[in-house]
Amino acid sequence: MLAQYLPILDWGRTYNGSVLTNDLVAALIVTIMLIPQSLAYALLAGLPPVVGLYASILPLVAYAVFGTSRTLAVGPVAVVSLMTASAAGAVAAQGTALYLEAAITLAALSGIMLVVLGVLRLGFLANLLSHPVISGFITASGVLIATSQVKHILGVTAGGETWPAMLGGLARAAGTVNPWTLAIGIPATLFLFWVRKGLKPALVGLGLAPRAADIAAKAGPVVAVAVTIAAAVAFDLEGRGVKLVGAIPQGLPPFALPSTDLALIEQLWVPALLISIIGFVESVSVAQTLAAKRRQRIAPNQELIGLGASNIASALSGGYPVTGGFARSVVNFDAGAETPAAGAYTAVGIALAGLFLTPLLYSLPIATLAATIIVAVLSLVDLKTPGRLWTYSKADFAAHMATIIITLLAGVEMGVIAGVGVGLLLYLWRASRPHAAIVGRVPETEHFRNVERHRVFTVPHVLSIRIDESLTYLNARWLEEYVLEQVADRPEVRHVILMCSAVNEIDASGLESLEAIDHRLKDAGIGLHLSEVKGPVMDRLGRTHFIEELGGRVFLSQDRAFRVLAAVPDEPVADAARGMI
Amino acid sequence: MLAQYLPILDWGRTYNGSVLTNDLVAALIVTIMLIPQSLAYALLAGLPPVVGLYASILPLVAYAVFGTSRTLAVGPVAVVSLMTASAAGAVAAQGTALYLEAAITLAALSGIMLVVLGVLRLGFLANLLSHPVISGFITASGVLIATSQVKHILGVTAGGETWPAMLGGLARAAGTVNPWTLAIGIPATLFLFWVRKGLKPALVGLGLAPRAADIAAKAGPVVAVAVTIAAAVAFDLEGRGVKLVGAIPQGLPPFALPSTDLALIEQLWVPALLISIIGFVESVSVAQTLAAKRRQRIAPNQELIGLGASNIASALSGGYPVTGGFARSVVNFDAGAETPAAGAYTAVGIALAGLFLTPLLYSLPIATLAATIIVAVLSLVDLKTPGRLWTYSKADFAAHMATIIITLLAGVEMGVIAGVGVGLLLYLWRASRPHAAIVGRVPETEHFRNVERHRVFTVPHVLSIRIDESLTYLNARWLEEYVLEQVADRPEVRHVILMCSAVNEIDASGLESLEAIDHRLKDAGIGLHLSEVKGPVMDRLGRTHFIEELGGRVFLSQDRAFRVLAAVPDEPVADAARGMI
Repeated sequence: MLAQYLPILDWGRTYNGSVLTNDLVAALIVTIMLIPQSLAYALLAGLPPVVGLYASILPLVAYAVFGTSRTLAVGPVAVVSLMTASAAGAVAAQGTALYLEAAITLAALSGIMLVVLGVLRLGFLANLLSHPVISGFITASGVLIATSQVKHILGVTAGGETWPAMLGGLARAAGTVNPWTLAIGIPATLFLFWVRKGLKPALVGLGLAPRAADIAAKAGPVVAVAVTIAAAVAFDLEGRGVKLVGAIPQGLPPFALPSTDLALIEQLWVPALLISIIGFVESVSVAQTLAAKRRQRIAPNQELIGLGASNIASALSGGYPVTGGFARSVVNFDAGAETPAAGAYTAVGIALAGLFLTPLLYSLPIATLAATIIVAVLSLVDLKTPGRLWTYSKADFAAHMATIIITLLAGVEMGVIAGVGVGLLLYLWRASRPHAAIVGRVPETEHFRNVERHRVFTVPHVLSIRIDESLTYLNARWLEEYVLEQVADRPEVRHVILMCSAVNEIDASGLESLEAIDHRLKDAGIGLHLSEVKGPVMDRLGRTHFIEELGGRVFLSQDRAFRVLAAVPDEPVADAARGMI
Repeated sequence: MLAQYLPILDWGRTYNGSVLTNDLVAALIVTIMLIPQSLAYALLAGLPPVVGLYASILPLVAYAVFGTSRTLAVGPVAVVSLMTASAAGAVAAQGTALYLEAAITLAALSGIMLVVLGVLRLGFLANLLSHPVISGFITASGVLIATSQVKHILGVTAGGETWPAMLGGLARAAGTVNPWTLAIGIPATLFLFWVRKGLKPALVGLGLAPRAADIAAKAGPVVAVAVTIAAAVAFDLEGRGVKLVGAIPQGLPPFALPSTDLALIEQLWVPALLISIIGFVESVSVAQTLAAKRRQRIAPNQELIGLGASNIASALSGGYPVTGGFARSVVNFDAGAETPAAGAYTAVGIALAGLFLTPLLYSLPIATLAATIIVAVLSLVDLKTPGRLWTYSKADFAAHMATIIITLLAGVEMGVIAGVGVGLLLYLWRASRPHAAIVGRVPETEHFRNVERHRVFTVPHVLSIRIDESLTYLNARWLEEYVLEQVADRPEVRHVILMCSAVNEIDASGLESLEAIDHRLKDAGIGLHLSEVKGPVMDRLGRTHFIEELGGRVFLSQDRAFRVLAAVPDEPVADAARGMI
């Protein structure tokens, strides 16, 4: 019972020396990868770089205690950083104390929401984000993030929350480009692209094992960081107008209490909820992918608690919202991490970096961090999905494109909300008109098929309708309309049989609609009958007066219902099988 | 084509003398019933009584032109009047010009929204209100409305939007009860209750035909109106502190332009939307019930346009939101109305009343109108539904009770929103965990059944899973979790067969989940196979690379899939039927 909420009690019991070694190696590799990434994502979130380090220490420890994935690595990620910038930017200007307070409060709110969702077992709400909506959102976020970093490559000042505003800002600032910044930014970007695409094959060509080559390639950004720091020092780039990271407060994360200002909380709770859900969806997808490779399991509702604890830990140590990241988790997995303890060791590594390495980062050009971000997020942009969706499903295509367009034009929050809204609208639209068919008997069999697709036998005074969906409140009104329209079209009908073989459930609205149909058909002198009602559905109907009051009867099989009600002696099948009636 | 949007072109073509007579008789009866009701509902909406008359003239003409029900009678109704009072009361105090302007603007907004929903064919959105939510809302509204009128019976001043506030207000005002008002209010209430329950049997006992007795009983309120007017005049009740209707402006409805004040519209659009949807649901249910009795049809999306036109007409003539009412429509139907023209004749009748009868209504006690309302709405309170729902479906019971409690405690708007929210949440929860079963072969047949309910044959290395639902984004994540968990539990499994006989649709998220499951199973050395995929589903899958990339195969039947993959010679059925493989 306790182990359910504290997965550490599970894996901690069997922890031994060989597992420790594997975890330590993985932690070292992830630490090297995370340091530049944490600084870069803090920049993207509009926060001092050190906040990125803070968000990469305690949250990892919290996840190690509460999380269920053995290999997920939490910390700042690109999309959540962008959402943080958008939400905090709506409250205060970047660089102000209020902006930082808003970011910390977002982490606290998001942490509390995730824990509450987890305790209430509401993880299923993440289902509201369909895959086309998520991929549209990630593509558009990638474009927004990359565009937002171009100003750091150019060395200009420009703002904007939406894509047109960003492009406009860059265009207006075109005259103030700093050539020295450009001289750092462009080579760094090209180098990092090559690291991502070409370094691994080159290393393999040099005789390195593919897995080792893969991991070494992830360290590429560290090379870019080292070289550009050296260049900045050698050529006094600070004096030539190149923006550097500057002084980073040295030391361990401070203990911070998030804001209890109700006005601030009121402004931030909606973005905090969206950050929670997007973060959870991203994290749980990564965790599931990795768990499946080793036939392990994750518990999605406990994952909510794990991520929530991480975010609360982040807020308490002056960090901003975190979640499980794809790239770092894969590196952690590939480097051989076996338990969440690897995450805790990574936290120690980053804490040591915070204590001793920050003076070295003084001369790191911001342009290098921007290049890191651009190269990382452009891999998120997925140009193949729209075409694939168009071929497969127009509704999914519509939800995907709506999400992309609204995210680009109206920002990340509206993008998520619109995506969920469009998806739900299309779903409800489809759910409100399920498939149903008028059926007839396939000659010389007991099977009944759609009269429009098969040559089947029917009689004018019996109308058999097969309903291919559960009867719920979303389609209850449709059911009434459909049945009554079919009857209105056929004045000779005396019996209606609803064939319920595909009806898994009838909710109270569905039941009332059946009652309403029955009453209305009775008024018109028509009997309503049911056939092939499933056991559990029948059990529930038995608890009501519906069956007693029904104008017609309930038949075990459609065949029998049709035989009895049609009662046409010259139908060959009825004749042949009369003994069975 | 034009007739689709102007149903009048349809029935107008065959209009003749006998239909005219029937329509005129029905119109006369409905007019007599509507006059006190219109005044009373205007009082409930917090508006001058004459506004109720205005709302009962042009809207009827507009519905006659655009509506599809032959017998629906539109006008002010209780629940919509209460919602109007709530929405306008949030903007201004009763009796002010702004309050009236808000009510007229609500009608205009609601009219425009209904027309837009109709043109976009979005009538299905009304499905979001499940029957348990609607009945909970109507019960709670009935309680709120009746309680709000008690002050008029007592002759005291009291306010309150929520039930506790109303009760508190009445308790505080208990010392100021006006005995003369009480002397009118109590007998009027008792008389009207008797009219509703006991008059019809009494009239039938006197030899009247049941239908005629029914209609005559509906005229009961007119008697109460006449008698209490006489009493007010005879005993100078106005001088004794009894509130009377007072001077009503005589004449036809004024032409009014609704407000174009954007700030007002911003405050009113949410309540206007809720009024539109509640009004539409109420109206379309009544229209469908009546249409079915004569095997006529209504077109729900055109009904939106008809009701929208009525509300726009109401706004333009100084009225407030209207919809199709149950009681008056039934009277219209029973009195023999054959076409919407009856509604237009009723409009003429009420216009004449507005021109000539209003001076007579000066001395009508408000308490009489309050009694009319109380008696009318208490029939809306349905105490049987909660028990019935509890027996049938706990989820529906929860939605019903949540709607009642929140409507009573937080008002009508929050009640509707909470009802829709709870209903949707419960629906999504169920949709996110559909039914699925591990199946095995029923010995000596080709049938496969749930291993937990039947004695069936399985083999350890083949896992057959039957999925009883379409695969959509709402259950895509569940599908991944479910399949991977089942596999994680069974280390000996080498083949997974998904039996898709109940899968009517696979959306893009469902497809991606299948791909993800396939990749993960491949990683674990397991083949994923499908069986019994429906034709249209297979056609769509054929437009993707899924089938080519699938680790396993697609089998026409589960039987065949199991035979091929199980390949166990000592299974008796496989042996017997080997020739068929």
